Parts: sequence; structure tokens; C-alpha cells
Amino acid sequence: MIHMYGFWRSAAAFRVRIALNLKRLAFTETMIDLDAGMQNRPEYRAVNPQEVVPSVIFDDAPPMYESLAIIEYLDEIYRDPPLLPGDARGRARVRGLALIYAADHHPLIVPRVRRYLAETLGADEAARTAWIRHWFAEGLRIGEARLAAEAETGRFCHGDAPGLADLCLMSQAMGARGFGIDLAGYPTTARIVAACLEIDAFARALPLRQPGAPAAH
Amino acid sequence: MIHMYGFWRSAAAFRVRIALNLKRLAFTETMIDLDAGMQNRPEYRAVNPQEVVPSVIFDDAPPMYESLAIIEYLDEIYRDPPLLPGDARGRARVRGLALIYAADHHPLIVPRVRRYLAETLGADEAARTAWIRHWFAEGLRIGEARLAAEAETGRFCHGDAPGLADLCLMSQAMGARGFGIDLAGYPTTARIVAACLEIDAFARALPLRQPGAPAAH
Repeated sequence: MIHMYGFWRSAAAFRVRIALNLKRLAFTETMIDLDAGMQNRPEYRAVNPQEVVPSVIFDDAPPMYESLAIIEYLDEIYRDPPLLPGDARGRARVRGLALIYAADHHPLIVPRVRRYLAETLGADEAARTAWIRHWFAEGLRIGEARLAAEAETGRFCHGDAPGLADLCLMSQAMGARGFGIDLAGYPTTARIVAACLEIDAFARALPLRQPGAPAAH
Repeated sequence: MIHMYGFWRSAAAFRVRIALNLKRLAFTETMIDLDAGMQNRPEYRAVNPQEVVPSVIFDDAPPMYESLAIIEYLDEIYRDPPLLPGDARGRARVRGLALIYAADHHPLIVPRVRRYLAETLGADEAARTAWIRHWFAEGLRIGEARLAAEAETGRFCHGDAPGLADLCLMSQAMGARGFGIDLAGYPTTARIVAACLEIDAFARALPLRQPGAPAAH
């Protein structure tokens, strides 16, 4: 039994959801409403003292935290299909690409950072939206520079099968699109996004297809 | 032959330096002066299109990027001493702890973010320093909550040997201390920092011991 605490809009929950789908693992998901601050309530703090999503519970063991750590665990326990390449240099490349999105950029736009911008720095909604768009675009720009230039890029970020880097690219790209960024400016990225969206495991995991999401636009 | 492009103050270069030292690997390091914007010059962009440090070159192969990906590679190729536990749940815990520091918090205080705060949001130096202190403290607070509560914590973050999480904790804690944050407020963290500092591989890697650093205070 696998149970996730996530949220429809969460990029990190989206990544884990794709990984679970690719591994063909059944799971249930409780939505923690980040807009309502549910992640900071005592009931959820007892599940995850970091007060973020996702948290994933495997077979009644203690919850597991941090999307990249959870996905590495999934990939170690459920080998098929692999989300990391078979060679060490390939793994380093895929992990490095994943970190561009999931570490260097996503943490810049999460709720607690937006709250600090508003409450402490007095940034109004336009300034906060510009911040979010800037870092979404930066992540896409930097990823694109590498994906377009490196020979290992194939139909997906690394060769012709989807893996960890694609999960993270998708969470960045779908978030960016939600903020009105046109992926056409990042052609290799846009091509990989299109290839991912053809796969049901990605499509079913999309934020706008989750309970609680606004009607798809 | 291992060559790193780093910078004395860089938390990410610090993490890799500790890992190289723990593995007893000889390496050379070129300092890319982040204060002078050397990371954005064409010469360095040719090494690393992400325009950040570290980049690590192993035996004339293409440069490798992203500290966590580099450290995982090191740990796969040079097994002794291991930086990750032998069991999958342990690895997930250590990677999760590492990501609190290296993904959730460190990216918030890097030069390009500070530049955006100054140039686009008009944050003055006091506001930027408060931002940096806030996120250093948040990383320590959240890490401490888990380290203090979880039974797997030992002399180090996970058991009694140093590993990936300790490298990342140290980069967070030394950065925080550099900004005047008293580690005494985070007792488990402070105890682990003291244990790390007793190990030569950590002590030799310290930012203030690198060429170009200001005289130690």
C-alpha cells in the first residue's frame, strides 16, 4: 500500500505521481491544500515536520520526504522501468539535469518564499508573479542550453526512454506554462514535453487532472 | 586526475571538497570569483553553461555539474568510505536530509537571487542580509526538527559515520555561522557540526581555509 500526501498544483507531488505511474504502482493521495495553509496545521506537521508536500507512506512505514529522495527510493525498489541510466556518468548527467529544475529553481517559487516576498519585502502581486515567471523561465533557459547542446539528449532528456530528468523538466515546464510562459522559446524542451505528454503515466499525473484543480483551460 | 572549478565561499563547492577529501582523492581547484562575476564570463560558460560552481572534470571527460550529482557519482565510483547507507530506506532518509539543505534552502541565497532582490525588487543591503539569514535559519530549524526527533540520528546525521547529509548540513551551518547565526539554537545540529569539524577531511575543506578567502575570524 502506497499513500501520498500531495496537492494538485505541487510540482514535487507531480514528479512523484509520474514516477509511481511509470512504475505501474497503485497509490492513494490525500490533497493537502497549500492555499489554505493545511501544510502548517498540527495534523499534517505530525506527518511531515518540514510542512511541505509530498510525503509518501509505503506499507505503514514512517513517511518519506523530498521528491527526489522518494523517486530514487522507488527506482531502487521497483526496478522496472528504470528512471536512471545504467552507467555512472549517465546517472550523474540525469541527476544533474533533474537538480536544475527541482533544486535550483523550484524552491524559489514555493508558498513560503512567496509569503516572505509579500509580508517581509512588501512585494505586491505583480512583483510576485514577475518573480515566479522569472525563475520558471530561468530554469527552462538553463535546462534548454544543456539539452540542446549535449549529444546524450534523445527523444527524452537522456536517450529515448523517460527518466528522472524528464519528471523534473515536466514539473518545471507545466508550472511555467501555467504562468503564461510559451515553451516555443525552448524548442528542445518543448519537444521533450510533447513526447512526455504522449505517455499516459505523465498525462494522468498532470496537476490540472487532479482533484481540487480548477477546471482545465 | 580530478580538477574542480570552485570558489572559497561556495556552499556547493564546499560539499564536493569534503566528499573528495573523505574519499582520499587528490584534486586541484581553480577558484572562479563569484563576487567578480567570473562565472558569467564566456571562458567559464564554455566549461559550465549553467554559469555556477562547482564543475568537476574527471580524467579529461566532459565537466560534471551539480554538487549532489557529483557526490553521488563519486560515491558510486570510489566506494570507500561510503557516503550513503547500505539500505534503501536509509539512503532515502540521507538523501532527504541532504535536500533540505542543498535544494530547499541553499538555492535561495545564491548570487543570482541576491542580484534579483537588489536590482528588480529594490531590496537594500539590510533587506538582502535579512533574507539570507532567514533562509539559513529556516534550513537549520527544519533540519534540526528532524535530526532531534528521529532515531536514526547518531553521532552524525545518520548513524555514527559521516555521509552525504553531513556534507550538506555543514555547508548550511558554516554559511549560517558566517552570517552571525548562533548554532547553539540548534543543539543536535551543533553537536553534529562539532563532530564533523574533528575530521580532517571536513576541516581542510572549510571555506575560510581556501585560497582567496578573507583572513579567518
